[in-house]
Amino acid sequence: MCTVYRIADEVLDLMKRPLSIRIDLDSPIPTYRQIVDAFRAHLVEGHLAAGDALPSVRRLALELGIHFNTVAQAYRELAEEGWLDLKHGRRATVLQRGAPPSASRGTQRHFERRLRELVAEMRAGGLAPATIASELLSLAERLKS
Amino acid sequence: MCTVYRIADEVLDLMKRPLSIRIDLDSPIPTYRQIVDAFRAHLVEGHLAAGDALPSVRRLALELGIHFNTVAQAYRELAEEGWLDLKHGRRATVLQRGAPPSASRGTQRHFERRLRELVAEMRAGGLAPATIASELLSLAERLKS
Repeated sequence: MCTVYRIADEVLDLMKRPLSIRIDLDSPIPTYRQIVDAFRAHLVEGHLAAGDALPSVRRLALELGIHFNTVAQAYRELAEEGWLDLKHGRRATVLQRGAPPSASRGTQRHFERRLRELVAEMRAGGLAPATIASELLSLAERLKS
Repeated sequence: MCTVYRIADEVLDLMKRPLSIRIDLDSPIPTYRQIVDAFRAHLVEGHLAAGDALPSVRRLALELGIHFNTVAQAYRELAEEGWLDLKHGRRATVLQRGAPPSASRGTQRHFERRLRELVAEMRAGGLAPATIASELLSLAERLKS
């Protein structure tokens, strides 16, 4: 089952625009991890800024149709990564996060491997090499700007 | 814990060169999935060809220090994707796999999202945008050749 979820304006009331979170319950990627990955992308890309409030755990769980523990686990993971301030009884709030320390050579190799594996998965999944190459080039272009 | 495993020549005796499989037991990515991703990359990139035999489930499990059910699950997943022939009592063998059907627009969007999320994770993990861009360009270059 694939759930597309668009966070309503009234939920993310501090945000300039609604964000979409997509969860695929059939994916081998754990659900909490999919939530973390989706929010992290919005955070890195600046769609969520310091001071913005996230939907409450129970509300997001209800909207996604998943257990609230799964959302709570995702928020804890994002807090551990330094993105969120979690205070009991208050909404999760985006923190000002300084530049991360430079990645070690080991971390860099880890990510290079995962990137290579994802490209292999895309090829195995029926994406044409030219389509994948053009997606990679467009992402590289965005990083330069 | 991070286990680096290089499959010995005598294990993958039909192969032209040894392959490395890297497993990170601390990763939120399930271990069986890491094995699938690693083998799939070697298969897509042609390091493993039709007729090649993979290490036995028990042997690979022993070398990686994980439960043999985890390796068995990875091999079943690769078989379901059409990469492996699994016959009871015989070693898993690489199949000739035809070109996959063209990815649907939905599949393409799914992979574009995961690629974007992985790039965000790399940035959050301390890789410089220029380093990530150069890695993306080098992967795109390899797809064209």
